[in-house]
Amino acid sequence: MHFASEDTIAAPATVPGAGAISIIRVSGSGTFAVADRVISFKSGRCSEFEGYSIHYGAIYLPDGELLDNVLVSVFRAPHSYTGEDSVEISCHASSYIVSKLMMLLLDAGARAAEPGEFTRRAYLNGKMDLAQAESVADIIAAEDAASHRIAVRQMRGGFSQELKDLADNLLEMTALMELELDFSEEDVEFADRGKLNDLLDRVLSHIDSLLSSFRLGNAIKNGIPVTIAGAANTGKSTLLNALLGEDRAIVSDIAGTTRDTVEETVTIGDCRFRFIDTAGIRSTGEAIEQLGIERSLRKIEDASIVLGVVDLSDAEDVIASQIESLRSRIDFSRQQFVLLQNKADLGDKQIAYDGPCFRISARTGLGLPALRDWLASYEKDRIAGAGSETLLTNLRHFQALNEARTALLRVRDGLATSLPTDLVSQDLREAIRSLQSILGTSTPDVESTLGLIFSRFCIGK
Amino acid sequence: MHFASEDTIAAPATVPGAGAISIIRVSGSGTFAVADRVISFKSGRCSEFEGYSIHYGAIYLPDGELLDNVLVSVFRAPHSYTGEDSVEISCHASSYIVSKLMMLLLDAGARAAEPGEFTRRAYLNGKMDLAQAESVADIIAAEDAASHRIAVRQMRGGFSQELKDLADNLLEMTALMELELDFSEEDVEFADRGKLNDLLDRVLSHIDSLLSSFRLGNAIKNGIPVTIAGAANTGKSTLLNALLGEDRAIVSDIAGTTRDTVEETVTIGDCRFRFIDTAGIRSTGEAIEQLGIERSLRKIEDASIVLGVVDLSDAEDVIASQIESLRSRIDFSRQQFVLLQNKADLGDKQIAYDGPCFRISARTGLGLPALRDWLASYEKDRIAGAGSETLLTNLRHFQALNEARTALLRVRDGLATSLPTDLVSQDLREAIRSLQSILGTSTPDVESTLGLIFSRFCIGK
Repeated sequence: MHFASEDTIAAPATVPGAGAISIIRVSGSGTFAVADRVISFKSGRCSEFEGYSIHYGAIYLPDGELLDNVLVSVFRAPHSYTGEDSVEISCHASSYIVSKLMMLLLDAGARAAEPGEFTRRAYLNGKMDLAQAESVADIIAAEDAASHRIAVRQMRGGFSQELKDLADNLLEMTALMELELDFSEEDVEFADRGKLNDLLDRVLSHIDSLLSSFRLGNAIKNGIPVTIAGAANTGKSTLLNALLGEDRAIVSDIAGTTRDTVEETVTIGDCRFRFIDTAGIRSTGEAIEQLGIERSLRKIEDASIVLGVVDLSDAEDVIASQIESLRSRIDFSRQQFVLLQNKADLGDKQIAYDGPCFRISARTGLGLPALRDWLASYEKDRIAGAGSETLLTNLRHFQALNEARTALLRVRDGLATSLPTDLVSQDLREAIRSLQSILGTSTPDVESTLGLIFSRFCIGK
Repeated sequence: MHFASEDTIAAPATVPGAGAISIIRVSGSGTFAVADRVISFKSGRCSEFEGYSIHYGAIYLPDGELLDNVLVSVFRAPHSYTGEDSVEISCHASSYIVSKLMMLLLDAGARAAEPGEFTRRAYLNGKMDLAQAESVADIIAAEDAASHRIAVRQMRGGFSQELKDLADNLLEMTALMELELDFSEEDVEFADRGKLNDLLDRVLSHIDSLLSSFRLGNAIKNGIPVTIAGAANTGKSTLLNALLGEDRAIVSDIAGTTRDTVEETVTIGDCRFRFIDTAGIRSTGEAIEQLGIERSLRKIEDASIVLGVVDLSDAEDVIASQIESLRSRIDFSRQQFVLLQNKADLGDKQIAYDGPCFRISARTGLGLPALRDWLASYEKDRIAGAGSETLLTNLRHFQALNEARTALLRVRDGLATSLPTDLVSQDLREAIRSLQSILGTSTPDVESTLGLIFSRFCIGK
C-alpha cells in the first residue's frame, strides 16, 4: 500500500545551532524536481542519480551568489525512510544557511514538514507500523541504557509481532464462528468450544502479562521511582542532594524543613532513577507540614523502591519503632524496602536488620557508592528477570490492551453462558480492533475474514 | 602533499540534542578498519564499499543488543572533506546513542577529534589553504546575508588567489634580484629597477585597498556600528528599544537616565547593525553622568553611522545648535550622519535640513519603517560599492598584510637609496612570508626560487 503524497515536504533534520553539519530532508514524489531547481551539480541532475549515492553540489541564491557547497544523499522510492523519493542535503550548520536553503526549497515547490511528518509517511507507506513509529520518538528521548533497549526492541518489531500473533489467533476464532453463522440453518459447529476456551485463555494470559509489565516499563521510561522516607530530621534532603551531586533540596538542622516533595532524576548504571524526597513523618500541629506528610505517605505508595532513613544518633527503641512504622507502609509484593542507617560518621553504632541495609553518611558520602551499586544491580536484575519479554511503556498501548482484555472477558462469559454466536463474535471483533489499533492496521473487514476461511478450509462449495 | 595521519579521529558533527538525525564523522587511514569493527552490514564491509555511496547498517553493543540502525556515507581518500578515508554515520539523534556510538568507535581504535581537527586535516592535506579553513568558521557563524557572502567568497578562494598573485609578483622580483647575487662578480642587472618600482607600487596599492576594506569587512562581520547620539531627554533610549522591539534600555522622563552605553545587534535587510545607545550630551555636575557623556563622544567616533536625535518640542534655535554640535563631531569622510526629528507625534513641526533626515516618533513607531529601509539600502549600496573586491574581515589577515606592507615600504626605500641587493631581497622575502602566512603555505625556499628562475630564463649554463 503506497500512500499517494501529492506534496513534497522539507525540514531540517538536525538540531538547530552552529555546528559542523546540518541536514535538510526532502521527501515526496516531487523531491527530485525540487532538488533539480535548487541544487547545481557539475555533472548530471538529481533526478538522474541512483539511489543510495552521494553527490557534491552547489546552491546559489537568486542573485547568483553561492549559498553553500553541499553533499546530497539520494534515495529512491521505496528504498528510503519514508518509502518515497527523498534527498538529504548536508550543508554547513549555520542558521543563516539552513533558513535560506529552506526558503529556496519552499520557493521550488516543497512544503515545510509538520512535526513527525516524515515518520507518519513512513507509517502510511507501510515502512513501519504505528507501534514502531512511536518507538522512534522513544529512541530519541531515551537517556539511559534500559529505556533505550525497550524502545529499540519495539522499533525492531518484536512487540508488533506479538500483537499480530494475538490478533491472528483471535481472527481465526472469528472466522470459525462466522462460518457457523453462514451455515446456521445446517446447525454445524465448526468451532470446538473447548479449543476456543483454551485459545482464549492463552491470549488473555499473554495480554495480562503485557499489562502487568507496564508498571516496570513505564518506570524505566520515566525513571524508577525511589522514595526517600523517614522521620523528621533524619537527613533525607541531605541524602537527596548527595545522590544528585547538587544542592537541590533545602536542608537545615530544623526538623520539618522539607514540605513539598522534591523530585529529581539521575542515571545510575543502566537505569534512570527518580528520587523523591519527602517531608519527615511526625506528629505536627502545623497545617502546611501536615499536608506535606500526607503527600509523603502517598509517595511511598507510588514508589518501586523505598529508602527508609533512620538517624543512628537516636535511641535504639526510637529507631526500631520508626523502622516498624516505615515497613508497615510497604507492599512487599511489588515494592522493595532498603534501610539506610544515616549519620554513621558520628559513631560506630549499627542496627541489626534483616534485609537490604546500608550504613551511610549523607553528609560525608560514606556508604553511598555501595548504595548506588546496589540500586543499579537491583534494577538490572529486575529487568533481566522480565527476560526478553516485551515491557509495555506506552499508555496508549496499555489502554488498548486493557480494552481488548475487557472485550475478551465478555467473550469468555459469552462462551460459558452459550450466548448466540453473533454476539460473541462481535466482542471478539472488538478485541481484535483494539489490538490492531496499536499497530495502526485497518480494522478486520469481511474480505480478510473470508480470505482466512478460504485459505485454511477450502470449503470448495 | 598528503599529511600522514597515523591516527583515526571521530566526533559528532551535528549540534547535540534530541532531533531526527545525528552525524558522527570518522576520518583517517584507519577509518574503514574502525568502521568494520563497529558497523554490521547485510552484505559487504565498509572497507569494500565505493566512495560516495550510502549503506544501511546496524550497530550492536558488546552485549549483542542493537544500539541503532544507521546510514553510513563512505568517502575514499582523497575525495573527502579531509582528503582522507572517512565515513559519516547517520544515527537517531539521541544523546544516549551518540555517546555509546562514540565509545564503540574509540574502543575500535579511533581517537576523539579535537576542535577543528577535521578542517585542520583538510588544510594539511592540501584540500584548502588557511584562509579558506578560517572561512569555514566564519560561514558557520554568519547570521546575515552580508557576512555570509564575505565568508563564502573567502571559502571559494577568491581572496586566496589574490594573495597568491601578490606573492607570485614579489617572488618573481626576488628571483631576479637573487640571480644578480649569483652573478654579482659579472655585474649584470637582471632586474630593471624602474619595472621593479612599478610592480612594487601595484602590489602596495592592492595591499592598501585590502587593508582599508577591513573597517567595512569587520563592521559587517560584527555588526555595523550605529551610534544613537543627541542631547539629554530627546528619546534616544526609547528609539533603541523601538528599533530592537524590546525593552532593552531603561527609559524615563528624567534627563540623564542613561549612563552606561547600551549595545544590541539586530538584522535589518541583509546586514546586522550594532545599535549603541549613549548618554545624552549636556553639561552636568554629576560625576557618573559626566563619565557616560565622555563615553558617548568616543562611541560617536567608533560609529559607521550616527543617528543624531533632536526633540521637535524644543525651540528651533536650541535644535539648530544641537545639530551643529553633533555634526561637528562627525568625520564625514568615513561616517554617515542621519538627523532624526523625534517626538513628531506631538505636532506638525518640521526642521529644514539638508541630508538624510527622518521625522519619527520613537514612542509610536512613526517613521521607523522608513528609517529601517534607509539603513538597509545604505549599507547594501556601500557593500555593492566595494564591488566584487575582497572585504577583509579577519584580524590575523589584517595584521599579516600590515607586516607585508611595512616590509615593502622598506623595499621601496632600499631601491630608492640603492641599498645592496641582498638587503632589499631580505625585506622582499619577509613580505612574501607575511602574505603566505595568511594562506598557510610554506615560506619560499631556495628550491622554489630556483624553479622560477629556470622556468622563465633558461640560462643554460
